[in-house]
Amino acid sequence: MTKVNVYVTLRESVVDPQGIATKDALNTLGFDEVENVRIGKMIQLNIAGDQHEIESRVTEMCDKLLVNKVIENYHFEIEEAAGK
Amino acid sequence: MTKVNVYVTLRESVVDPQGIATKDALNTLGFDEVENVRIGKMIQLNIAGDQHEIESRVTEMCDKLLVNKVIENYHFEIEEAAGK
Repeated sequence: MTKVNVYVTLRESVVDPQGIATKDALNTLGFDEVENVRIGKMIQLNIAGDQHEIESRVTEMCDKLLVNKVIENYHFEIEEAAGK
Repeated sequence: MTKVNVYVTLRESVVDPQGIATKDALNTLGFDEVENVRIGKMIQLNIAGDQHEIESRVTEMCDKLLVNKVIENYHFEIEEAAGK
């Protein structure tokens, strides 16, 4: 089994209201050093089988379902291949 | 300015309906090799000043606002210290 972490972030040009609200809340709590916050997703996939072709398969998953490429960027890490 | 990435994930014992729905959708699309999906958050912080005490400050932010420690785990990476 292989673990893959997909990181999905909003494109720089896209406004992130959740991030703005979080920044404001942190500033209000006294964390004045926080200048900007952006919130993205981390998608952890457990994938059966070996690592053969896993990169192209995960890219396909991102393109078809996991990522909205109009407003989001992504990258992923193939984390580990455990026994089995 | 320092960039910090905070990764927030649901604890193993907590059910992740969003992850289950994503797994089912991937399987339906023909990605039968996907056995499990968990969805977490990636919070990107831009923090002013140098890296002095940044680790303890970010830990405090997580404990006070960013993370619900009853159901979530977190870890963070101090990514880079750009000039200024």
